[in-house]
Amino acid sequence: MALRKTGEFERIDRIFAPLAQGFPGALDLLDDAAILSVADGCELVVTTDTIVAGVHYVGDEPAQLIAQKLLRVNLSDLASMGARPLAYTLNIALPPDVGDEWLEAFARGLSADQQVFGIWLAGGDSVSTPGPVTLTITAMGEVPLKGALRRSGAGDRDVVYVTGTVGDGALGLKAQRGEIDGLDASHRSALIARYRRPEPRIECGLRLRGVATAAIDVSDGLVADLGHIADTSGVAAVVQAAAVPLSDGASAALERDPSLRDSILGGGDDYELLFAAPEEASDEIAAIAADLALPITAIGRIETGRGVRVLDAGGAAMEITRGGYTHR
Amino acid sequence: MALRKTGEFERIDRIFAPLAQGFPGALDLLDDAAILSVADGCELVVTTDTIVAGVHYVGDEPAQLIAQKLLRVNLSDLASMGARPLAYTLNIALPPDVGDEWLEAFARGLSADQQVFGIWLAGGDSVSTPGPVTLTITAMGEVPLKGALRRSGAGDRDVVYVTGTVGDGALGLKAQRGEIDGLDASHRSALIARYRRPEPRIECGLRLRGVATAAIDVSDGLVADLGHIADTSGVAAVVQAAAVPLSDGASAALERDPSLRDSILGGGDDYELLFAAPEEASDEIAAIAADLALPITAIGRIETGRGVRVLDAGGAAMEITRGGYTHR
Repeated sequence: MALRKTGEFERIDRIFAPLAQGFPGALDLLDDAAILSVADGCELVVTTDTIVAGVHYVGDEPAQLIAQKLLRVNLSDLASMGARPLAYTLNIALPPDVGDEWLEAFARGLSADQQVFGIWLAGGDSVSTPGPVTLTITAMGEVPLKGALRRSGAGDRDVVYVTGTVGDGALGLKAQRGEIDGLDASHRSALIARYRRPEPRIECGLRLRGVATAAIDVSDGLVADLGHIADTSGVAAVVQAAAVPLSDGASAALERDPSLRDSILGGGDDYELLFAAPEEASDEIAAIAADLALPITAIGRIETGRGVRVLDAGGAAMEITRGGYTHR
Repeated sequence: MALRKTGEFERIDRIFAPLAQGFPGALDLLDDAAILSVADGCELVVTTDTIVAGVHYVGDEPAQLIAQKLLRVNLSDLASMGARPLAYTLNIALPPDVGDEWLEAFARGLSADQQVFGIWLAGGDSVSTPGPVTLTITAMGEVPLKGALRRSGAGDRDVVYVTGTVGDGALGLKAQRGEIDGLDASHRSALIARYRRPEPRIECGLRLRGVATAAIDVSDGLVADLGHIADTSGVAAVVQAAAVPLSDGASAALERDPSLRDSILGGGDDYELLFAAPEEASDEIAAIAADLALPITAIGRIETGRGVRVLDAGGAAMEITRGGYTHR
């Protein structure tokens, strides 16, 4: 592994080495590997994501935001396991036409988020490619032994909760593409901002350890991700569509165009925590929401059976097709 | 993170999920992240490498060997830190024309090496790309607290050792490209095999903990990598060229063409361990070599000063230009 290289990649050194300063285990990116301490009685949680220019982002987004989204998507996976972030590695495959300015902005984005989330660059690799920019982040965190939140574990009669608001990611992508008419400017920019820079619910994940019976982050879409919980837990889930919390922008968009319901419930990229907890935990969950100033909304129930049903206000089953961004 | 995906990537699931079976922390690749146990009193060692089709390999090599080289290069970094391998993650960016056959062969290569090195697939991500196949492995291992071998630490009068033979990686690449004349077939195939599938010196790395004062794996080339040890340790190193151990194939090639000396001493991709140890450790090192049936050869000395000098049989300084493969 080497983010620091001679020749063409001296600039990588200059640009990325500062991100590892202050983290002794990165060994100044000068050794063959990085060293991470995991506290006694804790386990390591590891997650990784790759994004490709032109596939996962258009290419003309600010490089800071590309960096932050990639890092935050990984941190959201740590949050959904109840893990505390420790460090990350970064792999960059760069075509020859990417200049210092782009790389410096990319590094600035990471640097700012390192401060926000208390995480460090531990190492990585940089290579050249004749293809598009291809970026991989692997994030590591720690949880107490056997303390990780999992997708499995939801039990009959558990309440289904979601943090924050749902659908902003998918609507933000549509708004960015100019596919939503009549949005006022502030709603439009709020939705796009949510799509471009998600908010990993790290603190909430930490608080949910020992409280939630199952958890996931909303990346594939509310219905699909609740389906993952239901499948791995061996249960069914029922969602009351009217209970799903919407942002002002999403509410306004939905009012103008009710067909956006599918994008809201079926689209992805929200990176909110979706979890199940027994009814007795409701006071505890209310306390977590209050402490973190983060809305946590009960949206449904776990039942025996299989699959996910979404009910309208009259109690009739709705068909939700996946309307949002398709992960590739 | 998701190696298991729906739709186009169901095949990824089918092909790669078996590599995670038997490793409970992979959670069957079904959760948001993997969980790894690091033994009490141990630290985690992390390393990562990315390779790109057409840049780091030609593209027509057997996919098994591409997989094994990528995994082994990472394991060699763990070896150079004295770490015991635990698990790895795999990120794959695939162009649409890569068929099941290639992926299955790639997975078979990993599966075979998992048995050899006692390591498991813990998770990963798969995405599509309009560019070339781009592969990242991030390998994790453990070392006792403060027990990792490092590049720094070599002291004045330490002896410089190298495992195995040097130069086979660079000559193997040349042989594969048809750039070496007059090699007999068995030497040619042996050199190419060494280039294509290096042998990470895991067991030797474990035994060198507490014995070596500094260590690195030979990836950039003997002279360059010894330079890394000298630089980070703040010392100089002197190598006796005649002492550098050569394979039969490298000896034969060098005899026919003395100009290959540069490729041997300056080329990379050997993935042998290069380390320094005090003279008093020589019996211990001989015992390690005997136990592992692995030649370990004294090739020089650490001195005060800076840089690396290579001396010929008459004691005159030789100029070594970097003749091997250039990492990009």
